[in-house]
Amino acid sequence: MAKNFSTREENYSQWYNELVVKADLAENSAVRGCMVIKPYGYAIWEKMQAALDKMFKDTGHENAYFPLFIPKSFFNKEASHVEGFAKECAVVTHYRLKISENGKDIVVDEDAKLEEELIIRPTSETIIWDTYRKWIQSYRDLPILINQWANVVRWEMRTRLFLRTAEFLWQEGHTAHETSQEAKEETLKILDIYANFAENWMAVPVLKGMKSQTEKFAGAIDTYCIEALMQDGKALQAGTSHFLGQNFAKAFDVKFLSKENKLEYVWATSWGVSTRLIGALIMSHSDDKGLVLPPKLAPIQVVIIPIYKTDEQLEQLNEKVRSIKQLLESRGISVKYDNRDTYKPGWKFSEYEFKGVPVRLAIGPRDLENNSIEIARRDTLHKEIVPIEGIDNVILKLLDDIQGNLYHRALNLRENNTFSVDTWDEFKEQIEKGGFVMAHWDGTPETELKIKEETKATIRTILMNNPQEEGKCIFSGNPSKERVVFAKAY
Amino acid sequence: MAKNFSTREENYSQWYNELVVKADLAENSAVRGCMVIKPYGYAIWEKMQAALDKMFKDTGHENAYFPLFIPKSFFNKEASHVEGFAKECAVVTHYRLKISENGKDIVVDEDAKLEEELIIRPTSETIIWDTYRKWIQSYRDLPILINQWANVVRWEMRTRLFLRTAEFLWQEGHTAHETSQEAKEETLKILDIYANFAENWMAVPVLKGMKSQTEKFAGAIDTYCIEALMQDGKALQAGTSHFLGQNFAKAFDVKFLSKENKLEYVWATSWGVSTRLIGALIMSHSDDKGLVLPPKLAPIQVVIIPIYKTDEQLEQLNEKVRSIKQLLESRGISVKYDNRDTYKPGWKFSEYEFKGVPVRLAIGPRDLENNSIEIARRDTLHKEIVPIEGIDNVILKLLDDIQGNLYHRALNLRENNTFSVDTWDEFKEQIEKGGFVMAHWDGTPETELKIKEETKATIRTILMNNPQEEGKCIFSGNPSKERVVFAKAY
Repeated sequence: MAKNFSTREENYSQWYNELVVKADLAENSAVRGCMVIKPYGYAIWEKMQAALDKMFKDTGHENAYFPLFIPKSFFNKEASHVEGFAKECAVVTHYRLKISENGKDIVVDEDAKLEEELIIRPTSETIIWDTYRKWIQSYRDLPILINQWANVVRWEMRTRLFLRTAEFLWQEGHTAHETSQEAKEETLKILDIYANFAENWMAVPVLKGMKSQTEKFAGAIDTYCIEALMQDGKALQAGTSHFLGQNFAKAFDVKFLSKENKLEYVWATSWGVSTRLIGALIMSHSDDKGLVLPPKLAPIQVVIIPIYKTDEQLEQLNEKVRSIKQLLESRGISVKYDNRDTYKPGWKFSEYEFKGVPVRLAIGPRDLENNSIEIARRDTLHKEIVPIEGIDNVILKLLDDIQGNLYHRALNLRENNTFSVDTWDEFKEQIEKGGFVMAHWDGTPETELKIKEETKATIRTILMNNPQEEGKCIFSGNPSKERVVFAKAY
Repeated sequence: MAKNFSTREENYSQWYNELVVKADLAENSAVRGCMVIKPYGYAIWEKMQAALDKMFKDTGHENAYFPLFIPKSFFNKEASHVEGFAKECAVVTHYRLKISENGKDIVVDEDAKLEEELIIRPTSETIIWDTYRKWIQSYRDLPILINQWANVVRWEMRTRLFLRTAEFLWQEGHTAHETSQEAKEETLKILDIYANFAENWMAVPVLKGMKSQTEKFAGAIDTYCIEALMQDGKALQAGTSHFLGQNFAKAFDVKFLSKENKLEYVWATSWGVSTRLIGALIMSHSDDKGLVLPPKLAPIQVVIIPIYKTDEQLEQLNEKVRSIKQLLESRGISVKYDNRDTYKPGWKFSEYEFKGVPVRLAIGPRDLENNSIEIARRDTLHKEIVPIEGIDNVILKLLDDIQGNLYHRALNLRENNTFSVDTWDEFKEQIEKGGFVMAHWDGTPETELKIKEETKATIRTILMNNPQEEGKCIFSGNPSKERVVFAKAY
């Protein structure tokens, strides 16, 4: 496999597309913009879900499930929300098909037209806040801390596997609180969970900060985000956490009787990460030989490949590997033993290298004699022969090393590609080359828009605890109090 | 809570509806026929998913994800499939909304009409077999053993929470095989998994068998099922496993090069269980005091309630309970300690009784002195005082007892409500009273239909290894070789 595989330098975009398909992660389906997530790709998503789900539950959140459909009228209740989502939504208008008059085709039954059209959820604030109205009467009903794992649909015109698809999988948290302060704390608590997950599971360093008012979620007061830098110097928004204020409570008339016996609107947050994270994971670590996966999210952490000529040798190897596999699994390591005789060892080596399995063990008759085994790590491609005795501890340490190495490699890349610029010419030049560009901005949406029009760069984030520093806006020359992070983005 | 709660005898249907809502399992949403699954109900679904997912993976299946949308033309490729599903599907016709000319409303943008309508999947055979065509070339690509956890939509006209909803959650397995034999074995392997899950996790005894040709899945050669009997004497189909033959392979032109180097159509199965199982769980065990949950699927297995008058007493109890809770959790038991001071112990007792928590512990100052604790089981409502010493082993055994008792209670109910009848009059009388009715049938769809028209009873299943016995069809008097299982059903 991996023949005719583009390199990052030749064509980064093509490298990514080919990698996703050839590593069996996902592929385009017969439905425009919708992907099929193949078992190997889905196994990564399951690992992500398990880690995030535990973090959400450990912080008091519960899962629930709300309808796929949203009545059209719900959208109109929050003005900026409809503005943000109306242009890209799938609309259900009928509930029946019938056989056509010629008896051959199947057509929409016009007698089965819905009175009110239903929208496939692009996000669930509206249907959830319509529900919360029934659940919330008093401060005793608060907080509500709910998360949902679901599919959503946004009718994107230009799609790319994992990064931007018409249907995608995600989690969306929707919480309800007594006070603004409590809702803000929730927003930031989730931002920390997302950053922790990105850095310690995905091995992807992220900037934490706030979006500009132009870039915030349609319906939010403030949107916080984590932003990562890909190998090609483009930014990728990896997760967002929104402080919604009382916007949705007002739109859906959700009030509670406070401890002071006053009727008040409820405060809200919402937050989400999606299968887009898989795109970020791929683009952060992978190389010209294929996928590179961090051990904590790799469906297979260790693959073992037997090297043999005779059936007798294979039998001896099978027996030895059985005990090695058992030992490793007893330490919580996921192991695959590939002793298929339909493929040669060399083919298998490339296969698992291409699929990013963090550690490969190879064992042959001579190893049996010496009680040794060959161990190869995917990140550095380094190989060595080690004793079988104590292999479990060696591998546990190695998996940790790989996890750490991937993170530091990505952190170095980001640090080497983060620039401070002070003039418009410097800015344009650097944005063209790529990377995070820290620059002064006068704080107006007008300037932000013009910079975007001229350079395609957007403000990715305004860092948390951003150092205050007097300066002049790179575009308008007007006074500025802080630098913000610009980049071209996925 | 649980005031004004209907009894099963007064009105079984109303008892069920009220139970689902008042026990915080689910409720109707603003969208016709679609439910909101609340956290407590969803936690049961998560337990079901975890157990089933492990069984699927232990038998070599992998999860994947296919699109929500199915192009309309796909439905037309398998004749009986379109017949079965066309009448109840949600159709997406447009991909954009816009602001109306008056500037106030939001309307469908007629310029954004899809060239081909998209159907929200009612089941995924068509989109999956369209995909498998690309994955399968040779026998080396087989078998494919894939499962998907997903939402599906069937536009049911009369809906009931969990039992029949327009949108529901399920898993659907779709496998591809070299031979008919292998596909049949897969169909039955899954049937066994479903029966095992129903009996040993849900504590619901089930009949295993085959559907009649009339009742089989639209597109299957044979449909196997598990059927349970509810407390009101009605049957509930709890899971189905279909042998699809080569129907979908032919419809989507999926061929493989066999070991003998011949091009052959692939053999298929599909199988599913849904959130309907939660309905079966509720109706099998619950009583006039509320939910009764089997320990293996209960989100909370043990609740601990402190009985106190003073803050000092509560503090002492908190400390003692902390160590009890830790001990129980270390044994894998899920425990909730409810020491909220906004509710009285009596209120809490009813609350957890109503929510079906299998075991309740109550502890007060006198218990602290005696080093004892009150233990109550939800299934029999039996209470006793036991020493705190060794409470973990007592509870582990009790949870096992409750699990077993619920199963045997349900099995007794079924056995006491399974009847053999030989005449049409007996049949009509028994069907009216309820239960499984074993009767001779002449094997024709015509007779089956007439029986259904006259009595509303359907053939639920033809048992596996059904004893062969000469007899006469209760309706037509024609010869019959075996009895089949009739019932009215959900």
